Amino acid sequence: MSGCLFCKIAAGEIPSEEAYADEEVYGFHDISPQAPVHVLLIPRKHIASMNDASEADGALLGKLLLAARKVAAKLGIAEGGYRLVNNCGEDGGQTVHHLHVHLLGGRGLAWPPG
Amino acid sequence: MSGCLFCKIAAGEIPSEEAYADEEVYGFHDISPQAPVHVLLIPRKHIASMNDASEADGALLGKLLLAARKVAAKLGIAEGGYRLVNNCGEDGGQTVHHLHVHLLGGRGLAWPPG
Repeated sequence: MSGCLFCKIAAGEIPSEEAYADEEVYGFHDISPQAPVHVLLIPRKHIASMNDASEADGALLGKLLLAARKVAAKLGIAEGGYRLVNNCGEDGGQTVHHLHVHLLGGRGLAWPPG
Repeated sequence: MSGCLFCKIAAGEIPSEEAYADEEVYGFHDISPQAPVHVLLIPRKHIASMNDASEADGALLGKLLLAARKVAAKLGIAEGGYRLVNNCGEDGGQTVHHLHVHLLGGRGLAWPPG
């Protein structure tokens, strides 16, 4: 979508530190990491938020989670553990309106999750 | 899986406060809620954690997220926003070894997410 920061990152129009890439999903390191490993997984397709995902997006959403799992393995945190987070809307703390999954690991994550 | 708490909950062998149910996904209110709305979405199929999800589970993982979205709408927190969380392994804070997604909302969720 024109003007969307994450669409531009997925397209390579804005630089990012790549962590994962396939035809449908792009992953990159968060520029404000909250843990030793903090990667964002995004669909290349523009979906504003989880509220805007349709039934037809189900397989794509699953691929986002599987991509996060692969990144966790690649970056050596799969065995130690990690947390996956999706923020939707204001109460969720969503700041970029292109659906994304945070992968955080490399330290113990506290509870509650925010 | 025999002996798995969440398999027993999904099967109705251990009581829970139902929030969602379809053929593949079951949702119930967390007994130790961390927000005004705190629901757990689980696949009826036993998958120990995100690390144990296979490529073939992709569609099912997507359905978990879509189910969470539906519960958020049903419980009136879709517009205000919410956070979805999956904990994997020790650093992630996973306590029940049956993959689950937390849906939290009804209050502003802080950052970082744990």
